[in-house]
Amino acid sequence: MNYPGGIKTLKSHTTSYKNRGMSLEEDLNLTNEFYREEDIAYIYKKPTPIQITKVDYPSRREAVIKEAYFKEPSTTDYNGIYKGYYIDFEAKETKKTTSFPLSNIHPHQIEHLKNVLRHGGICFLIVRFTIQNETYLLTGKDFFSFLEQQERKSIPYSYFVEKGHLIPFTYRPRLSYLKIVDEMIGGSL
Amino acid sequence: MNYPGGIKTLKSHTTSYKNRGMSLEEDLNLTNEFYREEDIAYIYKKPTPIQITKVDYPSRREAVIKEAYFKEPSTTDYNGIYKGYYIDFEAKETKKTTSFPLSNIHPHQIEHLKNVLRHGGICFLIVRFTIQNETYLLTGKDFFSFLEQQERKSIPYSYFVEKGHLIPFTYRPRLSYLKIVDEMIGGSL
Repeated sequence: MNYPGGIKTLKSHTTSYKNRGMSLEEDLNLTNEFYREEDIAYIYKKPTPIQITKVDYPSRREAVIKEAYFKEPSTTDYNGIYKGYYIDFEAKETKKTTSFPLSNIHPHQIEHLKNVLRHGGICFLIVRFTIQNETYLLTGKDFFSFLEQQERKSIPYSYFVEKGHLIPFTYRPRLSYLKIVDEMIGGSL
Repeated sequence: MNYPGGIKTLKSHTTSYKNRGMSLEEDLNLTNEFYREEDIAYIYKKPTPIQITKVDYPSRREAVIKEAYFKEPSTTDYNGIYKGYYIDFEAKETKKTTSFPLSNIHPHQIEHLKNVLRHGGICFLIVRFTIQNETYLLTGKDFFSFLEQQERKSIPYSYFVEKGHLIPFTYRPRLSYLKIVDEMIGGSL
């Protein structure tokens, strides 16, 4: 396990649990790790897709990648299983305060989320507005309904406040987004 | 989409469909691509996990990874959604003719498959014996029952013949493993 550097701070009782300085990705890593440790859900971040063009083998057992390029992801970053359901989501943070730019999500990632929903999976976005320090879950349904009704290149912050679900910061897990997924499963969202 | 080099050959009607020279990974890529194109299932190979240690930015838009290392995978290579089910599997080929060495599968990959099964997902192994040119699907259930009953470091070929399910090579898809998954869903496996 690669623990983000902040885990020691987290274990100290004198430290605030508030999300200061931790990225959304680090928070989600800790959260998903908690869910796995507690045997609640098995959700992982996919590795970054890269195209490897040169590899050195200095010894028999060790390979060093000497040249590689980042590839555009064809799916979302996170997927896994919870209560028998296939879970799939993309997570992004923005420094903007009034809207979330849709350029943050690739068109084929949107297509992927639609495919997941159509095939009975549970999909959503997790978006953090870093200045407000608020993290929202927006269900796939509400995300797609925005895309259908609007031609805008960004989703207003107000849409997250109105339609999204604020994920509270807690000690363990950091971001208990599965509570909101429970409501999606229950059919109330 | 990155098509493996062989796709042109596949489209030629004069070429045999037999799996000669194509790796299991290439066959599975083509198969999963077919399933996506036909809107049957959305199953992807996860990117290879690497640890990036050095990146160059020769221009504003392009980044070149100059040093990176392969990391041990914590999950299996393939996962996705089919008929609302979470699907998860590992695929390996072996040149051995009498058995499949368990050293091909990391212990935490086995743990991951067990977690998936316990949480209501569908998991299995796909193993190709390259010399025999036979590709088997072994259900998670039969895989774990072997591990529990045996102390051996490999699964005999005969166990695949007896308990596994031979995946036929066809034109499209190359390996229609979802037919076997249908039987798993139906409860007959």
